[in-house]
Amino acid sequence: MMGGDFAPLEAVLGVVSFLKNNPDDFHLVLIGDQVLVQQYLSNQNIDSSNYSILHAEEVILMHEHPTKALKEKPQSSIAKGFNLLASGELDAFVSAGNTGAMMVGALFTIKTIEGVIRPTIGAYIPREDGSLGLLVDVGLNSDCKPENLNQFAILGSLFAEHILGIKTPRVGLVNIGEEEGKGNLLCQSAYPLLKANHLINFIGNIEGRDILMNKADVMVCDGFTGNVLLKMAESVYDIVKKRNIEDDYFNRFNFEMYGGVPVLGVSKPVIIGHGVSKAMAFENMIKISANMLKFSLIKKMQDDIFV
Amino acid sequence: MMGGDFAPLEAVLGVVSFLKNNPDDFHLVLIGDQVLVQQYLSNQNIDSSNYSILHAEEVILMHEHPTKALKEKPQSSIAKGFNLLASGELDAFVSAGNTGAMMVGALFTIKTIEGVIRPTIGAYIPREDGSLGLLVDVGLNSDCKPENLNQFAILGSLFAEHILGIKTPRVGLVNIGEEEGKGNLLCQSAYPLLKANHLINFIGNIEGRDILMNKADVMVCDGFTGNVLLKMAESVYDIVKKRNIEDDYFNRFNFEMYGGVPVLGVSKPVIIGHGVSKAMAFENMIKISANMLKFSLIKKMQDDIFV
Repeated sequence: MMGGDFAPLEAVLGVVSFLKNNPDDFHLVLIGDQVLVQQYLSNQNIDSSNYSILHAEEVILMHEHPTKALKEKPQSSIAKGFNLLASGELDAFVSAGNTGAMMVGALFTIKTIEGVIRPTIGAYIPREDGSLGLLVDVGLNSDCKPENLNQFAILGSLFAEHILGIKTPRVGLVNIGEEEGKGNLLCQSAYPLLKANHLINFIGNIEGRDILMNKADVMVCDGFTGNVLLKMAESVYDIVKKRNIEDDYFNRFNFEMYGGVPVLGVSKPVIIGHGVSKAMAFENMIKISANMLKFSLIKKMQDDIFV
Repeated sequence: MMGGDFAPLEAVLGVVSFLKNNPDDFHLVLIGDQVLVQQYLSNQNIDSSNYSILHAEEVILMHEHPTKALKEKPQSSIAKGFNLLASGELDAFVSAGNTGAMMVGALFTIKTIEGVIRPTIGAYIPREDGSLGLLVDVGLNSDCKPENLNQFAILGSLFAEHILGIKTPRVGLVNIGEEEGKGNLLCQSAYPLLKANHLINFIGNIEGRDILMNKADVMVCDGFTGNVLLKMAESVYDIVKKRNIEDDYFNRFNFEMYGGVPVLGVSKPVIIGHGVSKAMAFENMIKISANMLKFSLIKKMQDDIFV
């Protein structure tokens, strides 16, 4: 409840909206300042049996050093959330708080899926034709091995299929040439792995100019490349707004509306939200994690990684 | 004369425009189909002592394999150009032909500046405030060592200062975090080299969101990262055009207007133009190479690389 620039109000409003639209399906544990959360909830007409409030007396702030903060603030909402996730008291965890702390928590508090070398973070990419693609990794793994990219492709494909609703998602390798054999050493080695991987629908290399087009649904790259691409795309949106350009497509570059990105490859759903998340983003984040549980996505990932 | 989609007409018009604006400063050798070039020149009122035509009976087409084509077509305009450059009969070489053949020619026909480990290619980046930045490398070196990035910074700074006219250009390392120590292994190792390099004005890391902003004038990265960033930026322009958005800033994403990118680190000025280059682009390409000669840029690079 304490994550994001508008905490806890917008988080509470997101919870309320989710519970109104999904009564009785899930029990939400709201971790944060009990008094504040209770106060914001008091006027809302929702069934109190569908949620409980867990008080957290500390908050990890946006600028704090992730590892240090998690260690020094065990009573923070993020630390508490991950501990409950690790102990099995929670099935999924969602926050728009300190991104670094969320990543560190996901990597070191809960387990990775057996066989996953490195978990990854994907981001939604709005495409020119109105659809959404998934770019993976966008910053969790700045240096990657070919095997990492191959696993990102599997994890991303399952997420794209079951959560984004894309049937047999096309996987593209972000590269600087179209033919096999092109690119840096990582891509040259990853290509044959992806090509031989029968769990995914690999369509070959895609280039920078294809990222915003509906060419591949899951766009695989190392986290360094993915992060600079994503941040440049975010800046395009800022420029569009600054220049008062009103356009349906570029409005979809507002990355806040997508409600957080999943950490893929860990044993429980973890969704990391944007600091500027508002109610709709929080509701979407809860929905994504709920769908990951509903469609047993973690189990599907376990099965596929082990093939 | 035979490079680009509108060859040789637009190349000839670019030459004419350059010679009209810069009479007697340079002698241009026009390499290509003598009959066609002569025909397009016949109506133009320019002093014939300022140019000569060198017939080339072959043309390397856009889709041809660079190395193979250069070998099998020694009478092509690109092969002839590089041979004359290597023998010293030409001082600079400009073409909008097969990009791969231009790169291979620059790398293997003429020498690199002594001390330069790998030459590089930069691209102009239009920034939101109206200025131009230089992104380097954009595809010549898909895998880089820290020493490469450090040299790209030196070469890019000299180009930015003397050709783009930016005084004491600020050098930024494209990275995925602001502080020293962030990023992939390459950036972690390159940062201290750049920091200790007194030939450049290093301002630290820049992120994806800074590329289109006036934060650093010379933005250094490996060629894989630079290429995907550049191609995504190019696709933003395509989308803007397709959606009929009229905006001064995004109009500057028309990468054709900049007239070709320099190969930096080789012993002679080589400018590679866009396939869609028109007369203005050709004129600009000739101007850039002429200014590189006028300001003794190669000599300055030799001096700086050897410090």
